Amino acid sequence: MTRETARLLITCPDREGIIAAVAGFVARYRGNILEADQHSDPHEGEFYMRVEVELDGFSLGRETFAAAWEEISEPFDMRWRVYWGNEVKRMAILVSKESHCLNDLLWRWRTGELPVEIAFVAGNHADHAEQVEACGISYQHLPVTPETREQQEARLLSLLRDESVDVIVLARYMQILSANVVDAYRERIINIHHSFLPAFAGPRPYHQAWERGVKIIGATSHYVTEALDQGPIIAQATTHVGHRDTVDDLVRKGRDLERVVLATAVRQHIEDKILVSGNKTVVFD
Amino acid sequence: MTRETARLLITCPDREGIIAAVAGFVARYRGNILEADQHSDPHEGEFYMRVEVELDGFSLGRETFAAAWEEISEPFDMRWRVYWGNEVKRMAILVSKESHCLNDLLWRWRTGELPVEIAFVAGNHADHAEQVEACGISYQHLPVTPETREQQEARLLSLLRDESVDVIVLARYMQILSANVVDAYRERIINIHHSFLPAFAGPRPYHQAWERGVKIIGATSHYVTEALDQGPIIAQATTHVGHRDTVDDLVRKGRDLERVVLATAVRQHIEDKILVSGNKTVVFD
Amino acid sequence: MTRETARLLITCPDREGIIAAVAGFVARYRGNILEADQHSDPHEGEFYMRVEVELDGFSLGRETFAAAWEEISEPFDMRWRVYWGNEVKRMAILVSKESHCLNDLLWRWRTGELPVEIAFVAGNHADHAEQVEACGISYQHLPVTPETREQQEARLLSLLRDESVDVIVLARYMQILSANVVDAYRERIINIHHSFLPAFAGPRPYHQAWERGVKIIGATSHYVTEALDQGPIIAQATTHVGHRDTVDDLVRKGRDLERVVLATAVRQHIEDKILVSGNKTVVFD
Amino acid sequence: MTRETARLLITCPDREGIIAAVAGFVARYRGNILEADQHSDPHEGEFYMRVEVELDGFSLGRETFAAAWEEISEPFDMRWRVYWGNEVKRMAILVSKESHCLNDLLWRWRTGELPVEIAFVAGNHADHAEQVEACGISYQHLPVTPETREQQEARLLSLLRDESVDVIVLARYMQILSANVVDAYRERIINIHHSFLPAFAGPRPYHQAWERGVKIIGATSHYVTEALDQGPIIAQATTHVGHRDTVDDLVRKGRDLERVVLATAVRQHIEDKILVSGNKTVVFD
Repeated sequence: MTRETARLLITCPDREGIIAAVAGFVARYRGNILEADQHSDPHEGEFYMRVEVELDGFSLGRETFAAAWEEISEPFDMRWRVYWGNEVKRMAILVSKESHCLNDLLWRWRTGELPVEIAFVAGNHADHAEQVEACGISYQHLPVTPETREQQEARLLSLLRDESVDVIVLARYMQILSANVVDAYRERIINIHHSFLPAFAGPRPYHQAWERGVKIIGATSHYVTEALDQGPIIAQATTHVGHRDTVDDLVRKGRDLERVVLATAVRQHIEDKILVSGNKTVVFD
Repeated sequence: MTRETARLLITCPDREGIIAAVAGFVARYRGNILEADQHSDPHEGEFYMRVEVELDGFSLGRETFAAAWEEISEPFDMRWRVYWGNEVKRMAILVSKESHCLNDLLWRWRTGELPVEIAFVAGNHADHAEQVEACGISYQHLPVTPETREQQEARLLSLLRDESVDVIVLARYMQILSANVVDAYRERIINIHHSFLPAFAGPRPYHQAWERGVKIIGATSHYVTEALDQGPIIAQATTHVGHRDTVDDLVRKGRDLERVVLATAVRQHIEDKILVSGNKTVVFD
Repeated sequence: MTRETARLLITCPDREGIIAAVAGFVARYRGNILEADQHSDPHEGEFYMRVEVELDGFSLGRETFAAAWEEISEPFDMRWRVYWGNEVKRMAILVSKESHCLNDLLWRWRTGELPVEIAFVAGNHADHAEQVEACGISYQHLPVTPETREQQEARLLSLLRDESVDVIVLARYMQILSANVVDAYRERIINIHHSFLPAFAGPRPYHQAWERGVKIIGATSHYVTEALDQGPIIAQATTHVGHRDTVDDLVRKGRDLERVVLATAVRQHIEDKILVSGNKTVVFD
Repeated sequence: MTRETARLLITCPDREGIIAAVAGFVARYRGNILEADQHSDPHEGEFYMRVEVELDGFSLGRETFAAAWEEISEPFDMRWRVYWGNEVKRMAILVSKESHCLNDLLWRWRTGELPVEIAFVAGNHADHAEQVEACGISYQHLPVTPETREQQEARLLSLLRDESVDVIVLARYMQILSANVVDAYRERIINIHHSFLPAFAGPRPYHQAWERGVKIIGATSHYVTEALDQGPIIAQATTHVGHRDTVDDLVRKGRDLERVVLATAVRQHIEDKILVSGNKTVVFD
């Protein structure tokens, strides 16, 4: 039913004729554009575009695209990526004690809502091994202590490489990844933070929110950068709370936000709908 | 600051190469596309597109566009409209007793948020004459009774024509417009209904909502058709209510929804962002 | 940490002195009121109250409460129920093909968020047997055909009785329960309907919503009555959709609403926070 | 239609029997409790209560209440206030250049939604004099410069006193009030801040939000304290934004939030529904 597509993501300096050039190129190779979306940021003078081309009939393919595309990408000075329809992304999930985001992602994966391969789940606790393995997925127990941190990160990096992981999801993973991992998977590590950032960055955001007496709590998914809880925001959601809500109530209500916000960001990433622009995201959804 | 643009709205059968043809046409006449948005409806096989072209540098204008554009519009069998940047739409507002939507639209107009000319406000009650005239706008008192309905509608139609009205906003106007008016201003009459349609169509929707015991109320703006409260929906919003809320509370909370939902639909119409597709809308916002 | 309580739910004709009488009664028996909430419906002349009394120190208990309470309940003509803190409700879940609500309830139960005993899960398909039994819960496969309907309902009823079920959750159960079951478990059967009722009652509400072109979809949990999708509404939620959303997108977005709305209603029922008033609910949350 | 009531607000150390004592007191003086709401904060050990008593039939009045009430308030060590139904609060509105909150409050006042007397509107610009005076309300132009600040604040204070103002609403007033004013009207000055506090406190929050690339913006109403944007939060609301939204779009969308959030907080204050607890609010709505 769903048609196989190539998805082309472009960033370049803004100027006249980009859309015509791209659309003309696709038409010349008999491609049918199913979706095209673009955005000009007048402050930065940058242009962002996402084009989804039906593979059926398109006379370019994985081997031939790049050479042909130079004719457009070079004169317009484009940074670009292309994703081919039959490539399924390989995902690793990192988790600590809290299981709600992990369980939610596994359920979406099992029912086909999230079309990825899960390479492995890794956790600094052993808690979720049974549940994960019952799904036929490998569970890597990587307990982190100040002494073992470096060694465990090396092990994680080699797992990620051996398993050809494309995207890492921090499903309430409470350890800080080193610059090594962040560098190697830039714009490919998605975190869920349990507050409406930039409010309540750092630890125990629900406690912070309760202390401050806010009437709304939130959740934020973002790409991970070196700066804790400061990376480009992908998706956010909020819900109302009141004076009767205890910290436990905030935690409970927040779980329902976190699951949906994280799943939204992961879906948008998987469908190649996100372009990073400085410390912001352009989400063509 | 804001650049003057032409806004081109297109509907045609879906097939390959439309975007390339449109973007190529614009580029050929030295136009810069500021925004382009499109949508394919696979069920109907229809294609919808909105293109916003910067006027500065574009070598086509009001007199020359249509002839040149035939080269694209004919082979693709397009229905299309173009709006030129320096044309300000002329709006008529119809109102009954409730003033919140009227007051809101007037405030947005006074502060420049709503860039229209208000040709006149007409009401079947005299209540708002003073407020409207204090804004320097003509107020037409058109009291409707079974006996005078036909005559008043004729007067309304002639006012609309004399004043070259482009768009009619029913700001809680509680009379039903005849087919004459609806026909003459198809897809140009915007109503606000005080429920989340299709629930609670017809009179006294807040009473209906209270009777049913819903936990959410809503408001819906839509284009007016011959079928009451059945036209294409443009925008909707909802808010929570509870067992303590009386009908009066629903009315009060609803007013805040209605104002924002109506203003949203009016803004989207004014900015030529809405295409009607059967009994639905495509809103390129 | 959480204190054990008795929860007293009262409905009676509205008049002076009810709160004083109830609070005085509790104080006389050395009870500490942790929460008290009440509501007067001036249209019906009815008064609704929920009182939560700490068991520690309260000199009445399960055996002695009713006799003492007559002193208050008789003069005020009260209908009332009392729930004792250490009683855990026994829940049966009915399910068809769709698993998202079932999976969500099981997850909330496993993590302790939903403090119930799950007596069994019954389904008219065999699909979920493995998942349910992996949780240590009995799965009853009750396939329903026109010929077997009566027999299966009898089996269901006897299961419900044998297992002392207190509350039945229809987690996207697509069969209609007979009046026998509905009568026997009045105000104790919670359904989730995948629309913002009263819009789109009946089958395939997401298709109906897509056809109508709404800009908001919703989900509704309600008590089941003889009239399909007409029972007292407990909780509702909505989310925005647009012209790009296909029916499949509505279904996907709707799943996230349904899970949360159903879980909210179930939690409120479990915590004895709902009083039914005619065809409405009073939810003391 | 609406019955006249006395509204009693109580804060005291939490212990057994408070509700019984209060409800018994009201019953003894033949008062009918229309609404009663209470909250226990286990962290602080504090108890908060709001009781609304119908005046018709109540044998205590403004002159006699305090003496009789000592019997309850002294043993329970209560801080308390009582508001009598026929007392209308006197409000002063302070404003700078932005008019949307002012216009909104005036509209709610004109239509009777906000049952207050508006003593005066004061602004540090002359802009709104005409609009305010057209409503029959005095406009005080109090331009503030570093040199005149002290003098203008003295003038403001004497206006507030001469006019017996009960509550001050900062309707996007961009000047900081001195400790003199804040002290004199503690828990009676309501501000609207154009962000979801605590994010983006201080100046130009929409610019800050745009820079950070958030996907949600908000508005916050709170009581004013000496610490800028740090007072007890009364109400908050949020709305979604995207990468296409410019700072101007955030400002436009935010105006619709600010108006409703400020009006909500003002209504709750006017109806004596707010108790301040440390740096938080208990809102019995």
